[in-house]
Amino acid sequence: MTTVDGLLRPRSVAIVGASERSAMAGRLTRYLRDFDGAVYPINPNHREIHGLPCYPSLLELPGPVDLVLVLVPASRVLPVVEEAGRAGASCVVVLSSGFAEIGADGRELQDQLVAAAKRHGLRVIGPNCQGLIYRPTGLTATFTAAADGEQPGDSGIAYVGQSGALGGSFLGLARDRGIGLTAWISVGNQADLTATDAAELLVADPNVRVLACYLEELPDGARWTRLAARAAELGKHIVVLRSGRSSAGERAIASHTGALVRSGTAFDLLTRESGAIQVDDLDELLDVSVALTGAPSLRAGRIGVITSSGGAGGLAADQAEGNGLALPELDASTQAALAPLVPSFGSVVNPVDVTAQVINDHAQLGAVCEAVAESAEVDAVLVVLTTIGGEPAVAVAESILRAAKRSAKPFVVAWIYSHDQIAAAASLLRRNGVSVLSTTTAALRLIRHLVPHDERRAAVAAPRGLAGFLGRPALTEADGAELLDAMRIARPRGRLAAGPAEAGAIAGELGDRIVLKVQSPDLAHKSDVGGVVVGVPAEQVRDAAADMLETVAANAPEARIDGVLVQELLPGGVELLVGVQGGEDGYPPVLTVGMGGTTTELYRDVVSALGPVDAEQATALLRRLRGWPLLDGFRGRPRCDVAAAAAAIASISQAAVELGDRLGELEINPLVVHGSGAVAADLVVTGRTRR
Amino acid sequence: MTTVDGLLRPRSVAIVGASERSAMAGRLTRYLRDFDGAVYPINPNHREIHGLPCYPSLLELPGPVDLVLVLVPASRVLPVVEEAGRAGASCVVVLSSGFAEIGADGRELQDQLVAAAKRHGLRVIGPNCQGLIYRPTGLTATFTAAADGEQPGDSGIAYVGQSGALGGSFLGLARDRGIGLTAWISVGNQADLTATDAAELLVADPNVRVLACYLEELPDGARWTRLAARAAELGKHIVVLRSGRSSAGERAIASHTGALVRSGTAFDLLTRESGAIQVDDLDELLDVSVALTGAPSLRAGRIGVITSSGGAGGLAADQAEGNGLALPELDASTQAALAPLVPSFGSVVNPVDVTAQVINDHAQLGAVCEAVAESAEVDAVLVVLTTIGGEPAVAVAESILRAAKRSAKPFVVAWIYSHDQIAAAASLLRRNGVSVLSTTTAALRLIRHLVPHDERRAAVAAPRGLAGFLGRPALTEADGAELLDAMRIARPRGRLAAGPAEAGAIAGELGDRIVLKVQSPDLAHKSDVGGVVVGVPAEQVRDAAADMLETVAANAPEARIDGVLVQELLPGGVELLVGVQGGEDGYPPVLTVGMGGTTTELYRDVVSALGPVDAEQATALLRRLRGWPLLDGFRGRPRCDVAAAAAAIASISQAAVELGDRLGELEINPLVVHGSGAVAADLVVTGRTRR
Repeated sequence: MTTVDGLLRPRSVAIVGASERSAMAGRLTRYLRDFDGAVYPINPNHREIHGLPCYPSLLELPGPVDLVLVLVPASRVLPVVEEAGRAGASCVVVLSSGFAEIGADGRELQDQLVAAAKRHGLRVIGPNCQGLIYRPTGLTATFTAAADGEQPGDSGIAYVGQSGALGGSFLGLARDRGIGLTAWISVGNQADLTATDAAELLVADPNVRVLACYLEELPDGARWTRLAARAAELGKHIVVLRSGRSSAGERAIASHTGALVRSGTAFDLLTRESGAIQVDDLDELLDVSVALTGAPSLRAGRIGVITSSGGAGGLAADQAEGNGLALPELDASTQAALAPLVPSFGSVVNPVDVTAQVINDHAQLGAVCEAVAESAEVDAVLVVLTTIGGEPAVAVAESILRAAKRSAKPFVVAWIYSHDQIAAAASLLRRNGVSVLSTTTAALRLIRHLVPHDERRAAVAAPRGLAGFLGRPALTEADGAELLDAMRIARPRGRLAAGPAEAGAIAGELGDRIVLKVQSPDLAHKSDVGGVVVGVPAEQVRDAAADMLETVAANAPEARIDGVLVQELLPGGVELLVGVQGGEDGYPPVLTVGMGGTTTELYRDVVSALGPVDAEQATALLRRLRGWPLLDGFRGRPRCDVAAAAAAIASISQAAVELGDRLGELEINPLVVHGSGAVAADLVVTGRTRR
Repeated sequence: MTTVDGLLRPRSVAIVGASERSAMAGRLTRYLRDFDGAVYPINPNHREIHGLPCYPSLLELPGPVDLVLVLVPASRVLPVVEEAGRAGASCVVVLSSGFAEIGADGRELQDQLVAAAKRHGLRVIGPNCQGLIYRPTGLTATFTAAADGEQPGDSGIAYVGQSGALGGSFLGLARDRGIGLTAWISVGNQADLTATDAAELLVADPNVRVLACYLEELPDGARWTRLAARAAELGKHIVVLRSGRSSAGERAIASHTGALVRSGTAFDLLTRESGAIQVDDLDELLDVSVALTGAPSLRAGRIGVITSSGGAGGLAADQAEGNGLALPELDASTQAALAPLVPSFGSVVNPVDVTAQVINDHAQLGAVCEAVAESAEVDAVLVVLTTIGGEPAVAVAESILRAAKRSAKPFVVAWIYSHDQIAAAASLLRRNGVSVLSTTTAALRLIRHLVPHDERRAAVAAPRGLAGFLGRPALTEADGAELLDAMRIARPRGRLAAGPAEAGAIAGELGDRIVLKVQSPDLAHKSDVGGVVVGVPAEQVRDAAADMLETVAANAPEARIDGVLVQELLPGGVELLVGVQGGEDGYPPVLTVGMGGTTTELYRDVVSALGPVDAEQATALLRRLRGWPLLDGFRGRPRCDVAAAAAAIASISQAAVELGDRLGELEINPLVVHGSGAVAADLVVTGRTRR
């Protein structure tokens, strides 16, 4: 029997630790009454539990057992796993706690548990989990109180998450909205089966249309990529709520790419690229999942608002901008179609104010909804309702639903009224794929999540033999120059001088103003020891180099000195920061581009994307910077060579892919972009350091 | 009888247009059964309505009438108002629609209605309103279906708003939360009694502790100031939801102060300064109002989080930063106090994870809450709960409540679970001043609103005779110089030259590099016609001035030329934008300070405050800029003369107060701040143009 069948479609379920005295065990046994197959309570001290015949052990059952639920204390779990293996079970769900979550002793016990399960070819869910629900087979193998009572009809939504507590909340919130979940898996400590494993099982299940994931840690990048791709292929949706995104250390101001990019950025970007949706709270996880069961085909963020209350419509208009949504003025033909349907004291622009007069005329309200949905200016329809409850509310819901069914565009309702008054109407709408939210804020946030992103990565460019650079013990300026040349990124003209005299001689060839940088394998931060001097007149270079070497010797007497790099001083231009962090844990590298100089630190004007990018995508990233006008000829300034900047950005992103997970970070800061050309004034390369 | 007594405590109420056939009239009559005084249905065609004796007209009642509710069609309202006047009523509530909201004809009818009421000394609420509720006298004089059914106990919260529809929603949402409103007034078209009038009545009422206002237009600034001050004096709170804040025109990128400041900014700042709270949605209006009935004394935004679910606690931590709140690590003594109360696999840091084990041990949960509340690191306590419902939920609520009652710090609960499951527990907490929200997002948003602002304005400085400047037809550079001198703000040295020869002669006295500006009363934008040249070497000034005048003559042949202003070129420094918009409609002037140059347009790094400010407040504004480090010696740069900048900012803000509502805008852009001194490189003054 496959894991998925053993878990979701077992022929029989045994409850080890069944008892009439424990509320948890009692609920579990009671819930299993609806299960399609055999249920075997196991307890050596009872002949019968909750009306079911009770058995002394897994080895004394009247038939085969596929799924074993374990409720006994942690210290007694190991023998149960052994027995389950001998009894031929395929999955064990360990609901008991007292394992890795309590410390070292528990972790050892957990490791033993997994080892025992492996020996018997058993898969384990948990320990310290709350079990699972799979509606198609009537399997409610959890003790969560949230599964109690009658559940609404099956929605095609599945939940998977580490947290059973939040999972219970999700189940409860879904029931409030009249939504029954198709599947629900709390993976607990993930000793064997992880959230990603469970997600894979559920995405493959034909009964699941939307997968809602609550994650407390980042999944492996490569597996997550495949999962998202598989979901997209099957026309299914994934919605993710991830906790642990904030951390005090990441808040500090810093100009370094590593500090500008939060951990998890690669996951966020990958999720976005794959078409999965990431949300910020549990109610959003549910609202977005419910909306996606209606399979809305939202193309962009232009919404048509219909309301009976000018005030409520005004609130929606106020909030749209902050959610990146627009309320376009409706086109003339739509306005003309609306004119006979809306009283003269209403409005046919947007928000369309149908007034209280129309809201109870269901044919007219439906016609208004259809006309707005048909407008080419509108990607989604938002109906904002206030004090309409009870029977009239159901009639209003029916007329909205008729219009929604005739349109391919998503309909969302913000119904700002008493929960009890609108429960029936809202449930009717939700069951038919129309989302109902209780505030305009929540409705607009939902629509924002449904707007698709158009993000894709470039094909990986051919490798260009860069890997050798990472083998070197410390990258000198000369190594950096070689690497820039390999990436075909321009750098300042310059040469290495052995001492002050040679520096003076070289300077004359390079221009009026010169930059001097001490070269040493021992100095990672040469400016800290006085090892960089900028803008020296060419004729003073000899003396300046001598002074600089003296200062460095005083500050860092141990450092080996290879010489002095003599470079031209670059003319002014727009300074960019271009950094890329090497991929790890199966994730692609993360490219970060920003306005350089003080702007980086003060305004954090940076954007990130997964690498590699091509020149076109690099240009698109630059356009997303708030400082883009500076590159584009702001206020009559000359335009910068965006093509050269984009080529350099694409090149560094491709280099990062080739360098793979040995690369820590590759950063050009600044890349100086001129009217013609873009020059890397400084390059830093570091190897992988695990965070 | 005073307006307030006639409206809220009438001896009797008449319903003109009472009927058993209309659902609206039926509800109104039914609701009035609970009223303390006499109720007189008026309808010439009936002897009895809903069991009450019915009268043919207001002039044939068995006793005096104070409050008249009017439900007849618009065309028949005017004679009713006349009759109400003759019958000695003091207030008329016109529930009928068909007035100003339908256009010119309706507006005329409305004006006649107000005129008639004035003649009789009657106050009018409406027309096109939904009436009012005043619980202390049992008066439910509205037809809104939201008032139907039993209402929860009186909370001290009053609602006033233009919109009856949103008002009904507010009433419905309050009931969902187990909260009964003390008063509720829908002012409709505000033909006579405005939202501000109603707010004044309600703030003065001893039964009202919190006033929730929904505003669609800005109130008069002076009255709003007095209202807020009166509320503060009485220890009452005002919470405001304002719609119509967005407008497409205000979104355009612009560097001009007027375009950087939204209309309504003065209201927003005044509201903030007065300690009133402005919210973004109707549910927040209610949540904040409910929280304020508990009169929490929140000092700052440091919260202690207690949860039974690590995941849910993690979500709260993720969301805190975005709300400007902090989760400090708890101090050692608090951690020590918590250690025996929390299992070893929980956490005593922050969030405090008590684990599922403790959540049902009420004494222990209460002790944890008390210990966290007692920590000096914590200003508010947030308890995050998940799958706990029914009877156990009530017990949990009781233990939280006991701890909350022993603490002066606000307690907020985020209870993420099924509405039905937690209704009783949540209602218990809310009735006792503990807010219960359904998501961590909403809970943190609420706490954010409760954090007090410390904002006050400076005393107005003595007038300094600036008003004359606004009388001049167009302000020349010379006038500007005079105004800057009057404000004691430094400006570039310079003099007016009649022509190129004199310009050349003056230049020598001013330095190496010179700025030339054509002077003309006809040229508002002199750089557009080539009338500004920057950085001319002193020896070339004569020729440059001649060239400039020729260019201007070619571009603007009609312009009268007063001469050429010859100025020193200022050395580089940090450029600020300092603008002030004149006060209007009773509002103080709005001062805006920002980082100048391209930063203004690209990053909108600006802050606004009400004028006047003193130097200390001006410095505080500068510190709020993200670009502040540039003034403060960023990355080893020299510090700027912040004192000089602050003095200039204070001075311009005080000038705006003195210039009063004749001032449109006064803007220095840039104010160049050096290591010593701050110089106004350019000044623009405009008179009032109404927006």
